[in-house]
Formats: sequence, C-alpha cells, structure tokens
Amino acid sequence: MPQTGKEVRSGVSQQLITGPTSGMAPGFVQANLAILPVDWAFDFLLFAQRNPKPCPIIEAGDMGNPFTKFCADGADIRTDIPKYRVYKHGEMTEERLDIKDLWQDDFVYFLLGCSFSFEDALIKAGLKIRHMEENVNVPMYKTSIMCHAAGKFQETPMVVSMRPFKPADAIKAIEITREFPTVHGSPVHIGNPEEIGIADISRPDFGDPVTIKEGEVPVFWACGVTPQMAAMVARPPLMITHAPGHMFVGDKMDHEFKL
Amino acid sequence: MPQTGKEVRSGVSQQLITGPTSGMAPGFVQANLAILPVDWAFDFLLFAQRNPKPCPIIEAGDMGNPFTKFCADGADIRTDIPKYRVYKHGEMTEERLDIKDLWQDDFVYFLLGCSFSFEDALIKAGLKIRHMEENVNVPMYKTSIMCHAAGKFQETPMVVSMRPFKPADAIKAIEITREFPTVHGSPVHIGNPEEIGIADISRPDFGDPVTIKEGEVPVFWACGVTPQMAAMVARPPLMITHAPGHMFVGDKMDHEFKL
Repeated sequence: MPQTGKEVRSGVSQQLITGPTSGMAPGFVQANLAILPVDWAFDFLLFAQRNPKPCPIIEAGDMGNPFTKFCADGADIRTDIPKYRVYKHGEMTEERLDIKDLWQDDFVYFLLGCSFSFEDALIKAGLKIRHMEENVNVPMYKTSIMCHAAGKFQETPMVVSMRPFKPADAIKAIEITREFPTVHGSPVHIGNPEEIGIADISRPDFGDPVTIKEGEVPVFWACGVTPQMAAMVARPPLMITHAPGHMFVGDKMDHEFKL
Repeated sequence: MPQTGKEVRSGVSQQLITGPTSGMAPGFVQANLAILPVDWAFDFLLFAQRNPKPCPIIEAGDMGNPFTKFCADGADIRTDIPKYRVYKHGEMTEERLDIKDLWQDDFVYFLLGCSFSFEDALIKAGLKIRHMEENVNVPMYKTSIMCHAAGKFQETPMVVSMRPFKPADAIKAIEITREFPTVHGSPVHIGNPEEIGIADISRPDFGDPVTIKEGEVPVFWACGVTPQMAAMVARPPLMITHAPGHMFVGDKMDHEFKL
C-alpha cells in the first residue's frame, strides 16, 4: 500500500494503480476532481463562492495548465487520477484511465475538499464512524436545502452525507469539523431528517444505509456530490470528473486544512 | 447618523450621504467593492481563491447584474456606494457619486470583507484598537509576503494592516479573528516587522503611524488593499472600486460572518 501522495500518484500515472484510493497514503489529502471549459469555469467558481459548504474548492488551475501547484507540486491532472469520467451535455459517455488526448487549452481543473480529511480528525478524537465500522460507503441524501444559483448553474438541491453519533459525540463532531471550513466545515443539520426533506433515512440516494442505534442522532454534512449534481442539471457540453472513490491524492496533509 | 444598512444606502442612493461610512449603522457589515469586466473577473475569483486572507470575497455578482443578493437584498451596486473610483489600465481617471452610465453588460461586482467586522468583535471582547484611540487610519504596509499569481494577476506583495497589543491581548485577538475567515481571518505575522520585509514600522505605506507602547507587540493582518494593488499591477482596461473609506453597507450583521 503506498504511504505518500507521491507514491500513489507515481503508481497511478504508470497505471499500476487503477482502483479506489481509500486507505492509501494515510494522512495525505484526497480531493474530488472537476474539469470544465473556461466559459463554464467562471460560473463554477461563482457557484462555489456562494455554496462553500457543499463546494469547497481547495485548488483551481489556470486556464490550459494541467499541473497542480497547491495540493501537490507539479502533479499532472491528466494522468495522476486512477479513473476519470467524461460527461457530455450532462450524460456520462465513458470512463478512462487518463485524459491526455482529451485535454484542451481552455480547460480549467478544480480540486474539491473531501470528507476523508475531517473523518481522519474525528477518528483521532476517538469518534467511531459508523459506515467505516460497517465497512460500507457513507450514506448520502438529496435534501430540500437549495444551493444558491450562479450563472448557468441553477438552484439545485444540496446533497448531504450522514453520520450517526450519541449527542456528546455529535457535539464533539461539530466542534471538530467547524475547524475544517475548506472541507465542508460544520454540519448543515442535526436530528430530524424530515426537516431537510429526507423522507426515509434508511434509503439513501447514494452510498449505503447505516445503522442508527438507540439514543443516536443523525448528523448531516454538505457533500461534494452536490456540485456534480448541479453540473448534471446545467449540462455543460463537456465535463470531466474522477470516478467515485478514485480520488486525487496530494502532498498536503489533512491537518493542513485545519483552520 | 443612520442606524441600519438600509438607512445608509437610502441616503447614499439619494446622494444625501457622500462621505466615509465609518461609524455608520454600527454592527452592520461594511464591504470593499471591486467591479471588473467578465474576462478579468474569472482571474480575480481565482486570485481570491488562492489568496483568501487578503482577498476575502463575501459576495460576487452574476455577469451584468448590479443587484446584490447576499450582503443585502436588492441593493444597487451602481448607486448605493457613497463614492466610486474609476481606473483605466491601472490609473485612476475619476471619482464619482454613481456609476449608472458606466455600467456594462459584462460587468461583475465583488464585495470583499473588511477588518471593520472583526474590529467590532475585538472591541466587544474588551480590546482597545490603537488607531481608534488615536483617531487615525489603521497603518498599512507592503510586505515581502508574496500573493500567489492567478491568470493575468501576477505575484504581488501582500499588504497588511497592523494593530499593537500586549501579548495576552494579542493572543486573544488571534483567537477572535480566526473565527472570521471571510474577513481576513487570523493574523499573518506577529512580532518583528523586518521578518516580513517592513523596514520602518513608523512609516506605513498607507494610512497613519500609531504608537507602539513598551511591552506591546505588533500584530499583522492581511489587508483588503492587496487585491487593488494586484489589479493596479495587472492593469485591467477598466476597473471600478469604492473610494477609500466610502464602503458598501449591507443588511447582514458583522457577527453573521463569524464561523
């Protein structure tokens, strides 16, 4: 198992690593990817500025430049992610292991913070993350909380991830995650799922259901799936993302994203 | 003296208020203004994303739309600021009381957080702000800390503001201002000015010098003058800002910008 971001990216760019990055290079930041042509990139940045909790941009590239500067020094965004998805007019058309021959001079890449970074901090504080205990994907739900529109991106529902905790641990989780404003920050809701438009907590829209034990309260964080959903609705002519779970692994450490 | 943001903007739009907004509508957020054509706006947003401490964008408009949504509901950015400055290719060409006849369909406005918001919190915590006690402008300095470049905006020196405190109060000031990440956040330096390229603390580059008493330490925050400096260097064909001290006053309260 690769122990650093560099090791992961080296294996990825040689296509020796083509699977999910979960558990690789512990402590190193993992990020979501979105690539858009520049005439959509401004609206995407605006959308992020107006919706920082679901859309925490931790790095944005200059037009046409595929080499990262902040999350890692000189990583190649065209080859250093294990699996890509290509969307045309909002529909996924293919998955690929690199996008060298798709790169355009007007492309802008965005790396978005991911809850892996704050989960690490929760675990270090002694909290147990249910979906990890049950070895499944985190449950995610569409909500009635609407994101602010921005240019070509319309008002779209915020997607949230849910982790159940006993009240004392829920408080601790709020205190800890507020320290990570660039990685979704503090929760957007705690308690009754119906108040944010979730009819059935046992049936997530994405990911897997998890057990909520007696005396536990569900805690909801804004989720990075939101901007992808917004893009699917806005239907840009071309958009490239990472395949779910196949993240960009940087050189920066999770704790560097703490306030 | 107007007591709310609405009262200020009403007086301003009727050109009954044409002077500095300091002290008006206590507790209401005041913001810096920058307006750029859309082909410069993307790079400006990128610059802000990469340099959030000196360039904390609290609202950005859609292209061509002069009406605010977030800091105030439906304020007119063309008339609701007491005094504007027009810059062409980096040179100031005029000051005006409104910009109705200058507004273009490709304009994007940006409102940037201002240290007024955290100073209010410092005062409420019992701290004394020296430049207020001495009734002068806050001292500001160009530093050797370089901002990250972004598109047409080159690497430019960060400008900082300075407030002297006794060590215990300096610690308190750091704790408080870290809670305001969208209003410059925690300081960028504390102590020896030479370490950040300030040769003579008694001669600020902007604003006025203030007394640093025996046993006090200077504390330096990123300053909103920085993005204006960066724009002056990049020389956009047209840029409009507020005149110094003549701020946009919103409906949101300072405390709403607390983390």
